[in-house]
Amino acid sequence: MACFPKRASGLIMATKEIASWAAKLSPSSLPASVGGAAQRSLYNYIGCAIGGSNHPTTTKAFRACEPFFARPTSSLYGQSRAVDAQHAALINGIASHVHDYDDTHLATIIHPTGPVASAILAFVQHLAVTRGVKVSGQDLICALVAGIETSCKLGLAVWPSHYDIGWHITSSTGSIGAAVAVGKLLQLDEAAMAHAIGIASVQVTGLREMFGSDTKSFHPGRAAQNGILAAILAEQEYTSSERALEAKRGWANVVVGGGIPQLDSMDFGKTWEIERNAFKPYPCGIVCHPAIDGAIQLRSRIIVEGRNVEDISSVMLGVHPLVIELTSKRSPRDGLEGKFSVFHGTAVGLLFGKAGPAQYDDKVVTDPEVVSLRDRIDAQIDETLAADAAVVKATFKDGTVVKQQVLHAVGSLEVEMTDAQLKAKFIDQCSLVIGERSKTASEDAWSLPFTEDVAQVVGRL
Amino acid sequence: MACFPKRASGLIMATKEIASWAAKLSPSSLPASVGGAAQRSLYNYIGCAIGGSNHPTTTKAFRACEPFFARPTSSLYGQSRAVDAQHAALINGIASHVHDYDDTHLATIIHPTGPVASAILAFVQHLAVTRGVKVSGQDLICALVAGIETSCKLGLAVWPSHYDIGWHITSSTGSIGAAVAVGKLLQLDEAAMAHAIGIASVQVTGLREMFGSDTKSFHPGRAAQNGILAAILAEQEYTSSERALEAKRGWANVVVGGGIPQLDSMDFGKTWEIERNAFKPYPCGIVCHPAIDGAIQLRSRIIVEGRNVEDISSVMLGVHPLVIELTSKRSPRDGLEGKFSVFHGTAVGLLFGKAGPAQYDDKVVTDPEVVSLRDRIDAQIDETLAADAAVVKATFKDGTVVKQQVLHAVGSLEVEMTDAQLKAKFIDQCSLVIGERSKTASEDAWSLPFTEDVAQVVGRL
Repeated sequence: MACFPKRASGLIMATKEIASWAAKLSPSSLPASVGGAAQRSLYNYIGCAIGGSNHPTTTKAFRACEPFFARPTSSLYGQSRAVDAQHAALINGIASHVHDYDDTHLATIIHPTGPVASAILAFVQHLAVTRGVKVSGQDLICALVAGIETSCKLGLAVWPSHYDIGWHITSSTGSIGAAVAVGKLLQLDEAAMAHAIGIASVQVTGLREMFGSDTKSFHPGRAAQNGILAAILAEQEYTSSERALEAKRGWANVVVGGGIPQLDSMDFGKTWEIERNAFKPYPCGIVCHPAIDGAIQLRSRIIVEGRNVEDISSVMLGVHPLVIELTSKRSPRDGLEGKFSVFHGTAVGLLFGKAGPAQYDDKVVTDPEVVSLRDRIDAQIDETLAADAAVVKATFKDGTVVKQQVLHAVGSLEVEMTDAQLKAKFIDQCSLVIGERSKTASEDAWSLPFTEDVAQVVGRL
Repeated sequence: MACFPKRASGLIMATKEIASWAAKLSPSSLPASVGGAAQRSLYNYIGCAIGGSNHPTTTKAFRACEPFFARPTSSLYGQSRAVDAQHAALINGIASHVHDYDDTHLATIIHPTGPVASAILAFVQHLAVTRGVKVSGQDLICALVAGIETSCKLGLAVWPSHYDIGWHITSSTGSIGAAVAVGKLLQLDEAAMAHAIGIASVQVTGLREMFGSDTKSFHPGRAAQNGILAAILAEQEYTSSERALEAKRGWANVVVGGGIPQLDSMDFGKTWEIERNAFKPYPCGIVCHPAIDGAIQLRSRIIVEGRNVEDISSVMLGVHPLVIELTSKRSPRDGLEGKFSVFHGTAVGLLFGKAGPAQYDDKVVTDPEVVSLRDRIDAQIDETLAADAAVVKATFKDGTVVKQQVLHAVGSLEVEMTDAQLKAKFIDQCSLVIGERSKTASEDAWSLPFTEDVAQVVGRL
């Protein structure tokens, strides 16, 4: 990739730098590893968007917006219906985040794909219907990468003060990433791309105070809409500042609230943030993932050794302090509370060998067998453990002790989710919503980067 | 008005306080002076929205959004066409701000009516068509007051640090004001109103860096849309935090960037910010208004005394330092540059006795007679003058000197625009767009608070 000039006349030129880089980005300029990371991010996104499509939060948004639906160009995944691209972006964006099961750029804890992919997938279908434009899988991937790099590198530039003061960094950067990505689909030139970035930059969306409410999921959906609106306005030569990001009263300075944004070391095209995007194996707080991993591994060993889980008399977890701080709910009453219980995660891992959305269903959380095992599990802090490590020690009725150590949880950068694990996750969550159809959806989503006509494939999702 | 408890368990409860106050507000609880101020604000807004409806900025937004228009329920003022309420709110909001001719809450320099009125007028028509709901003028005024009080009191709570760091306070508070106002039309109860406030609070829109570009006018339009979306989501029981405004990582703390928000002294229902809303007599930077006033008054005297403006050999202005800092463009080349030229404003005031949108047309700014007089005008700083004062001294060819002093410009709180002046402003700007029809539009807009069916009247605008 070319390296673009960072400074002109001693000034940081972040807006023009990103606009120039993005406008020039082409599929052939993407390293193969970046294309592969983009494929995985896109695939995981589609699974989450289908998986969350029948969640009550998503349904409420659908009902509220229904009187405002325009020409139905774009799919609501998993729902076999179409709405206009702006509303598809909102509703799919909500669905993709509602189970807390989407991706994580670990360096910024941005969930980058939701805002960007919700916007571009809906917009590709819009372009097909309203302009007869056919977008290929490779052009889609190029737009996705442009958007995700923009979100994550801006996130790094304002991290950590931006997040610390209370912004939900996924959406506050996601509007701009989505604008750049839609701008790619519209083939905006550098000047128009800069305006798109500017128009997106004034729509700063997402507060951490909303965590625990429906509005958390609204954030990535609204960011997707913000990006579409910014790009279509810029296409009509609607102007913004060309120093929107770096000016004294521009985006970066305003959103760090006293911190100092680092806009001069973003290295677009030299390092690729999408390669640092990770995927969750379980739809719950990431801190209890190591314990769940240990429980699942322990179950495998138990079965191999011919033992039964019901013969376990007690379990002791050794965990990082954050696990106790964030996920120590002893007796969760429903699925949402279950997400904040390392005891529940461990119990279902031992009983079912998995901890997918089905294991966080209200009925499972209150199932007597699950409750019984959960009540036999305890946890203690082990200061020697890293955040992605845990120890699970099971004591059987006959006094036997079986111990399982996890050094790095699945889904960390050290132990990435494999393609096979991503596919199992996709099928697992989607089959709860669309049943058998999840297999063809999985194939369609996985092969999307290689299709000649994205809109046609997305129309089947 | 009732006084609501500010604190519970030692905590500021701003979100619930506003929700409770707004949910209970009724037309009969409004003091007459508040109703009158609301009538004037609404009327001035409609004139500005018609006046800006054919501006290129407005037209670009229309073209960009056209493929996304849904059921055409709501008027685009001055354009004899309807679009869906969300897009009407956006486009009318842009139009209302694009000439920099809208209202000003002087204590915060919020332009409060744009976001709120753009949302509720469009939404009243939406309710009429989609639900058969008839909203009266008094209920409209009640919603408008609820919204404007919310915007302005929140603005005061975060002023001045919020504005200083770079937020365009009109829209950053306007989203929340618009949500409360639409919430009134939907008759949301306190709990739902609190959620509407919360959903609006995460859509923080508008950066000062955009001043001078099309995006400045986008801000109030987008704020109007944000408010509508927040309210319709809340109506469907979409949840947010009930401490959205005051929480540690809630709106107020996040948007002051290190400052300390003053949420505990907002006094809803005890003081009325709408009574402190002022109106611009001229569509240009407020600092040069005193000089324009002086020029217009001087012209009247000259005519009475039987003199001719063309016999003026030179003019010297005595002005506040800010006038030189902000509006000292000597030779403006078009209407936009004319707005930043106290010399142009003074020249047209002397030549035409007015300085309305017509006098900021490109053709007038380059007219030889205007240019000739403008070149004979000079200005010097008078440190003794207040920001709303000026001295205009004209020297005639025969050596006579005529001097006019302005202590408080028209449009200041000391010298409010009279109803007659507001009406002249309305006709003046609207006739450039809709010609003779501006008279009936003026009558409709002025009597809107007293109609039984707002949607019917607004449909004619």
